[in-house]
Amino acid sequence: MLEPTGVLPQQAWRLSTETRSWPDEVLVDVEVLNLDAASYRQLREQHGDPDAVRRAVLDIITERGKLHNPVTGSGGMLLGAVREVGPESPLGLRPGDRIATLVSLTLTPLRIDDGLARWSGASEQIPCRGTAVLFGRSIAAVLPDDLPDELALSVLDVCGAPALTDRVVREAGTGDQGGPSVLVLGGGGKSGSLSLAAARRAGAGRLVALVPTRAEADAVRAAGLADEVVLADARDPVAVAAAVGARADVTVVCVDVPGCEHGAILATVDGGTIVFFSMATSFSAAALGAEGLAADVRMLIGNGYVPGHATFALDLLRSTPGVRDLFERRERQTSPT
Amino acid sequence: MLEPTGVLPQQAWRLSTETRSWPDEVLVDVEVLNLDAASYRQLREQHGDPDAVRRAVLDIITERGKLHNPVTGSGGMLLGAVREVGPESPLGLRPGDRIATLVSLTLTPLRIDDGLARWSGASEQIPCRGTAVLFGRSIAAVLPDDLPDELALSVLDVCGAPALTDRVVREAGTGDQGGPSVLVLGGGGKSGSLSLAAARRAGAGRLVALVPTRAEADAVRAAGLADEVVLADARDPVAVAAAVGARADVTVVCVDVPGCEHGAILATVDGGTIVFFSMATSFSAAALGAEGLAADVRMLIGNGYVPGHATFALDLLRSTPGVRDLFERRERQTSPT
Repeated sequence: MLEPTGVLPQQAWRLSTETRSWPDEVLVDVEVLNLDAASYRQLREQHGDPDAVRRAVLDIITERGKLHNPVTGSGGMLLGAVREVGPESPLGLRPGDRIATLVSLTLTPLRIDDGLARWSGASEQIPCRGTAVLFGRSIAAVLPDDLPDELALSVLDVCGAPALTDRVVREAGTGDQGGPSVLVLGGGGKSGSLSLAAARRAGAGRLVALVPTRAEADAVRAAGLADEVVLADARDPVAVAAAVGARADVTVVCVDVPGCEHGAILATVDGGTIVFFSMATSFSAAALGAEGLAADVRMLIGNGYVPGHATFALDLLRSTPGVRDLFERRERQTSPT
Repeated sequence: MLEPTGVLPQQAWRLSTETRSWPDEVLVDVEVLNLDAASYRQLREQHGDPDAVRRAVLDIITERGKLHNPVTGSGGMLLGAVREVGPESPLGLRPGDRIATLVSLTLTPLRIDDGLARWSGASEQIPCRGTAVLFGRSIAAVLPDDLPDELALSVLDVCGAPALTDRVVREAGTGDQGGPSVLVLGGGGKSGSLSLAAARRAGAGRLVALVPTRAEADAVRAAGLADEVVLADARDPVAVAAAVGARADVTVVCVDVPGCEHGAILATVDGGTIVFFSMATSFSAAALGAEGLAADVRMLIGNGYVPGHATFALDLLRSTPGVRDLFERRERQTSPT
């Protein structure tokens, strides 16, 4: 990495994108980049029209040597084919393997060779040609044969959320009658719908999805992912608390807009747990909000890595038709026309 | 609150500071404001000389109706005397009580009447005259008789840290031989030294303090708060990992500068827990850093509220002479000369 020296790649402002790899590195021919939802939303809001979004993404990659949104601090992931494997790489990959990276693009050296010419700027998935480098400590999943690439990529992008939700719900469940109640803010999105499915499988009791629109509520209901689907703006704490009613033992925040911390806190019982997966989460808003409300809640930073998370998420998608329906519905909506 | 409507006070840009209180509110005559460490450091770095810091703090309070640093998102707390108690206030306070607020100044309506004329800008504690409003859901502690005000205020400012450290170390300790190993980054500071004392009392095994300077290392050693005191810049992940050696079961981050997330992650065992108390913590740096390092660590947002935290912290200070020594040493260093 280049600037500043002595920090790890995610902290670095700019990465070196030399394509001669170290012995433990893997070179990847990039096929698709997948922007994380918070980053894509921020770029769209800042730049407006799709063409400006496209230029902004290209500028970020050119300037920083990685796709690292300077405002949200987040990146996304990529899909590609392994070109070269260093002799000391521990990742178990072979040239030709088609893979998705499971570490953030914020720490993946990346060079784009086609100016993102094939991308309209109107979707989170960016078809492109370029080169990326995986480090020894990276993680990548070989793409499954039985799912379309875009679908697999969408699932792998958020696969940390269902795996950690599974763990937290199981921990909260010990000794409870009927399992802990679970609330998912943003239950209609990618990480949200997978988290609902994971919570149900982990033995959740009352399972509530909160969504922002009637259309999304209908879709989540049709998918059968929750016991109750409620409508509210997740940024309005009072509205969230009113919509949810009885507070949840576990609240999972999957809304990709800023300002959802206090609603999550108000909607969670004392002694309960909140898991923040949204990259739009503010550390200080969460810490000081809980303090200010005298709320004795355990608040977890949603770590995107849990051992086995890729397999777990893909399996949830395969075994929960409702989740797959929501993913495919979402793809149809965000695909360029 | 004024702007925008429909959010809770901490999220609001600006609070109303009308001094006619609601039935469940308490009016307080302010004597001292205590800036949180991250905020004071940021203001000093941005504005340089103490007089400019003083003006910046006054401008924030005048503009926002509260002491809410727009860069760090944090505030601090205050010491004052209760002037008026609304008939429906649940806080159990009486007019004349001398109190410290235990909710952040980021959600406390505040008006300053003396232009901060008695403060030099060169310390975190700001003697002043003004009025603050406590809401029904606030928390305030009546000041103890046996400790100087400034000392009590300093302890109460960070009292969430030792209480949550106590809980986390006890949870981590079940079934372990000799107790979980605990690392405190910034072990020489206020929250750091209290967290060390709390960890020891909670049954920590190997207890390591990491500090940035030789002088601070000597002070922590003299105070007898840790089994090992190591020197490193907490922002340098590789240096942190090297200095700490064997990774910790529990890592407590009390360093008030940005960029300490990755060092904490590298220094913690898989399956271990990190508690971030520093308001300078970046949510995305922590989440994506752990993912990028494939580190299966549980990361907690340090909630400033734990039931009984004020009494617990004051008691730790009274019963641990080394902690009191460090607090008093720190006061001597930061007091205006």
